[in-house]
Amino acid sequence: MRALLVVAHGSRRAESNDEVRALTRQIRELKTGDYEYIDCAFLELAEPSIPDGIRQCLDRGVNEVTVLPYFLSAGRHVNEDIPELVKAARAEYPGAKLTLAPHLGTASSLAQLMLDLTEY
Amino acid sequence: MRALLVVAHGSRRAESNDEVRALTRQIRELKTGDYEYIDCAFLELAEPSIPDGIRQCLDRGVNEVTVLPYFLSAGRHVNEDIPELVKAARAEYPGAKLTLAPHLGTASSLAQLMLDLTEY
Repeated sequence: MRALLVVAHGSRRAESNDEVRALTRQIRELKTGDYEYIDCAFLELAEPSIPDGIRQCLDRGVNEVTVLPYFLSAGRHVNEDIPELVKAARAEYPGAKLTLAPHLGTASSLAQLMLDLTEY
Repeated sequence: MRALLVVAHGSRRAESNDEVRALTRQIRELKTGDYEYIDCAFLELAEPSIPDGIRQCLDRGVNEVTVLPYFLSAGRHVNEDIPELVKAARAEYPGAKLTLAPHLGTASSLAQLMLDLTEY
């Protein structure tokens, strides 16, 4: 049983957090069968937090959680904060397999996706 | 003659700005012939500014510039700041056609791209 946890920065603007939740629903609708549970969590300013999001995945009975950062840039959040939270969760749940996926900004198809946006 | 101007927030971290410049180079390499000139500009904290970026496009002799926001969320920058800069540029260069493309966060293929990132 595997879970996918989309993690975003979080915003004081409720609409920004709802955009992340909407994207998570879209990913859920694409669900290929790899993940029994797909949800999102926020680094700050919105709920659930990343530790709570990981716990909620494990509470569903999954034993693998892939953490997927919805961040464009490899700043402190991507390079330090999120890896530290994943490391802490690994220590807290030694029976679970927690994987950190590359962040959105590394996607090789981002250039084509940007170009496609201009054909509207 | 058309130009594409990728606009990003800009960061105090030089590497983050360089990531935007690298993405711009990748878009340039994909160039389909729609754009004679492809460059990037920053809302703040990095150079060139968006007004300077637009001016540099027009200095190249293009008469159409598509401004493409590299932003995930429709916050104040996407909804207000960037449209205001484009509006001001339209007033300054009445002979040019300035178009504002949808921001990255609206791309319908973002969900699939995120899911693809977990298969690494």
